[in-house]
Amino acid sequence: MAEPVANLEEIRSLLSHLPGPDLEAGSAAAARQVQLTKPAGSLGRLEELAVWLATWQAQHPPRLDHPRTLVFAGNHGVAARGVSAYPAAVTAQMVQNFVAGGAAVNQLCRVFDAGLKVYEMNLDTPTGDIVIEPAMSEEECAKAIAYGMMAVEPGIDALAVGEMGIGNTTAAAALCAGLFGGAAELWAGPGTGVTGAALEGKRKAVADAVALHQPRARDPFDMLRRLGGLELAAITGAVMAARLGRVPVVLDGFASSAAAAVLFAADRHALDHCVAAHVSAEPGHRRLLELLGQRPLFDLGMRLGEASGATLAFGVLKAAVACHNGMATFAEAGVSGPD
Amino acid sequence: MAEPVANLEEIRSLLSHLPGPDLEAGSAAAARQVQLTKPAGSLGRLEELAVWLATWQAQHPPRLDHPRTLVFAGNHGVAARGVSAYPAAVTAQMVQNFVAGGAAVNQLCRVFDAGLKVYEMNLDTPTGDIVIEPAMSEEECAKAIAYGMMAVEPGIDALAVGEMGIGNTTAAAALCAGLFGGAAELWAGPGTGVTGAALEGKRKAVADAVALHQPRARDPFDMLRRLGGLELAAITGAVMAARLGRVPVVLDGFASSAAAAVLFAADRHALDHCVAAHVSAEPGHRRLLELLGQRPLFDLGMRLGEASGATLAFGVLKAAVACHNGMATFAEAGVSGPD
Repeated sequence: MAEPVANLEEIRSLLSHLPGPDLEAGSAAAARQVQLTKPAGSLGRLEELAVWLATWQAQHPPRLDHPRTLVFAGNHGVAARGVSAYPAAVTAQMVQNFVAGGAAVNQLCRVFDAGLKVYEMNLDTPTGDIVIEPAMSEEECAKAIAYGMMAVEPGIDALAVGEMGIGNTTAAAALCAGLFGGAAELWAGPGTGVTGAALEGKRKAVADAVALHQPRARDPFDMLRRLGGLELAAITGAVMAARLGRVPVVLDGFASSAAAAVLFAADRHALDHCVAAHVSAEPGHRRLLELLGQRPLFDLGMRLGEASGATLAFGVLKAAVACHNGMATFAEAGVSGPD
Repeated sequence: MAEPVANLEEIRSLLSHLPGPDLEAGSAAAARQVQLTKPAGSLGRLEELAVWLATWQAQHPPRLDHPRTLVFAGNHGVAARGVSAYPAAVTAQMVQNFVAGGAAVNQLCRVFDAGLKVYEMNLDTPTGDIVIEPAMSEEECAKAIAYGMMAVEPGIDALAVGEMGIGNTTAAAALCAGLFGGAAELWAGPGTGVTGAALEGKRKAVADAVALHQPRARDPFDMLRRLGGLELAAITGAVMAARLGRVPVVLDGFASSAAAAVLFAADRHALDHCVAAHVSAEPGHRRLLELLGQRPLFDLGMRLGEASGATLAFGVLKAAVACHNGMATFAEAGVSGPD
């Protein structure tokens, strides 16, 4: 993990510099859509996605030649409480699986021609156990955010962000409860598959962590520092850097959406350049997407993380761009308009 | 249009020869899924689709190297009643657009590497006006079905079926009402975008057609002959031939699902090799998919037809196959299982 210079104050201050929508590019896209050889609106969200991409890429026509999938991996002190069905060692093992090309996200990136980069974040040093202490110091959190920001390299035209981290649906549930309120059981679900007493323990860990940190957190970034994790902070940073760099973002599942939600909690328009790929089977995700005002593209019962849902959505985005850029207009094709 | 020798009796008799699921291939797929490096079930419907493809391709591993999109185009006598927002000439114009590569389905086939074949069916000779007469004679209907059957060529590993035909949501609505009952307004919606008095006229045409033909129809195939259309009959044939040839089918929107529903009305298991790509914005489609017991993969507000939704779903099927075939197992990757 690199050592960028950053502190949370600098990062907070970036929020006031987030670029807004490029209405000129968006209008150009909308104007083209109604000329294409189909009844107006008949491609539904594919039309909206083309306009949205143009708006947030600030270019018309929109492009999707270089989609990039980022997976950040981190370990969590709270995992020692048995909140996951899997041992914490699986985080590092799965990173090796990503590197070897054997995970779901590898196959999905291949299908949709997306570049994949995996970042492991001090896997040997889990964050603090959020039940009794903050996950990170200010400096650790700022560094992790800055690290995520640096992962948004030039030349990327859309970003899928995901995570790997045993225990991170516990952190994500606590983060959501801290940011938006609501009882632990509304946010903490089975994750990788915990049930019964283990699920009760997970929910108690979330409730205790929120009770400890929520009253003390100064703002959403401080909530992230206290209740989040290294990979979640990196996602927060990547989503913000993408906005600054005019790169539309596809949100993945519960944990990564929770990390993005930190920005939303700080600024209701900070995720306008994001679209939710899917609604996860993890129950808190549906609640979170509703709060974020996001309509997911898929509802396929996925709950894997590792940017799998977001990378799947690249297929839909590619379809949207291909139709927008490649279709003939009524005039070009000599097709009659409505009577 | 070729002139295959066929009659409706021969076609009906094929129903008793439809192959069932290949449980051996399906079980092999299910057994592999639980070994892959992810929590069991965490890829949701991607896992189900891999098992379903293996089951209906009758092979493990499943393959999706040669997906094929078929678009059948036909004209409808009922279109002269102003049931569409577009003139009937658009059917032939859009076929030219398909041939020239300018339509939505062309771009979608390019994105997902699907072969596209477009079949125009006597566009100069619309079917009979269903309000006053059967759409087709027995011979015409049987020929159209057989034509659709012949379009399922060897070597295809999945099929998307779609249509182009001004007026065909009127025929489809009548066909659904004829097959399954229910008032015209439950099945007939805006289609390409009719509203107000035109929509009322469309609904009256459907109600009158159903009142004329439903009591007289001998069976679902006769209902298709009376209320359907050439391109709809071809789709009925293609879906049946795909089953006979062990080719899984992706259903598209309202009109093509209505054509497939003829087989369901004749045999409740005749569409077990089909998956619904999406639920269309055309209101009757949701109702129809519920009747068919189909859970659509997408709900993106699409209502274009021309196999656009089904071809989009090839992206999801490719993802399912890639994950199933390409992921490492826990043993291969040295990843620990659940605690």
